[in-house]
Amino acid sequence: MSQDQLEARRHEILAAARDCFARFGYEGATVRRLEDATGLSRGAIFHHFRDKESLFLAVAEDDAAAMVETVARNGLVQVMRDLLGRAAGNSDGDTAGWLGTQLEVSRRLRTDPQFAKRWAERAAAIADATRDRLQRQRDAGVLRDDVPVEVLTQFLELAYDGLVLHLATGRPPGELSRVLDVVEEAVRRG
Amino acid sequence: MSQDQLEARRHEILAAARDCFARFGYEGATVRRLEDATGLSRGAIFHHFRDKESLFLAVAEDDAAAMVETVARNGLVQVMRDLLGRAAGNSDGDTAGWLGTQLEVSRRLRTDPQFAKRWAERAAAIADATRDRLQRQRDAGVLRDDVPVEVLTQFLELAYDGLVLHLATGRPPGELSRVLDVVEEAVRRG
Repeated sequence: MSQDQLEARRHEILAAARDCFARFGYEGATVRRLEDATGLSRGAIFHHFRDKESLFLAVAEDDAAAMVETVARNGLVQVMRDLLGRAAGNSDGDTAGWLGTQLEVSRRLRTDPQFAKRWAERAAAIADATRDRLQRQRDAGVLRDDVPVEVLTQFLELAYDGLVLHLATGRPPGELSRVLDVVEEAVRRG
Repeated sequence: MSQDQLEARRHEILAAARDCFARFGYEGATVRRLEDATGLSRGAIFHHFRDKESLFLAVAEDDAAAMVETVARNGLVQVMRDLLGRAAGNSDGDTAGWLGTQLEVSRRLRTDPQFAKRWAERAAAIADATRDRLQRQRDAGVLRDDVPVEVLTQFLELAYDGLVLHLATGRPPGELSRVLDVVEEAVRRG
């Protein structure tokens, strides 16, 4: 296989594994189910990822990297709006998979100190991207200036965590679009 | 046993089971572990609760009832401040158990439609208590009046969900106390 083919195969495995972890949880996503989801043998899967743990981490890291990029470009509020739009619309497998992975990461953070340690760096990268963008907005004069940027960063993260928990548990979106207006307004200059 | 003794025994089982579910998750809280946690035989446990499913639901319902009461009296922001204070202070088993149960409810909402159906009523009771209290505050003129009470209710619930997810995954409290100031301010008259 060429480098491009290897990369493409890796991406296919990640996408299928994401669905599988979201649907069955980490423990429930057996190697057999991962084979079914990817259409590949365990030998082929674990040629690309050392073991199930590494595969799960790769899925979660892939999601975190995409999120850092979007936050840097559009901010965390826009990430929330996109997420809500996708969850409220025709629920596609990607969004469900992504939400499921987020909750599964949360669960493992709670039950697996080793994983929590490995994950801390990823979480910090998302927080950094959020903080940097807020700082740029503060510099541009559109952000409220009576509350430290760090507090506003953690406020947006709180809202984001709440949104993930709400949507991942399959609750209806309700008035969440207008709730996000309240969130956005709370960080802007009055 | 007298009615009082039965009630006391029931409460003991609930408290021990809460710890057990929080520590091991629903599936991981085996009957054997529930026996160890309660110091009772399975026969004695299931004399009070039909099965593990019923026991878990009783734990979660107990938590939800306590929360409805506190929300009605002090509001959801105060519930969040109390939760944060307990989580940030000497982390007692009760708080950890309570947080764990909340996450476990979330996980089962996602994976078990039957449970989701039974749970909907409880979730509605908490939302009702929050909405009623906000309406009283609106009537008293301390609440902002440019956003519907329903939107503010869901805004507070979003923050609450975010707090639960943050604390239940063992992340440090950081600036959350000041974040809650921002949350509270966002629903008050400017």
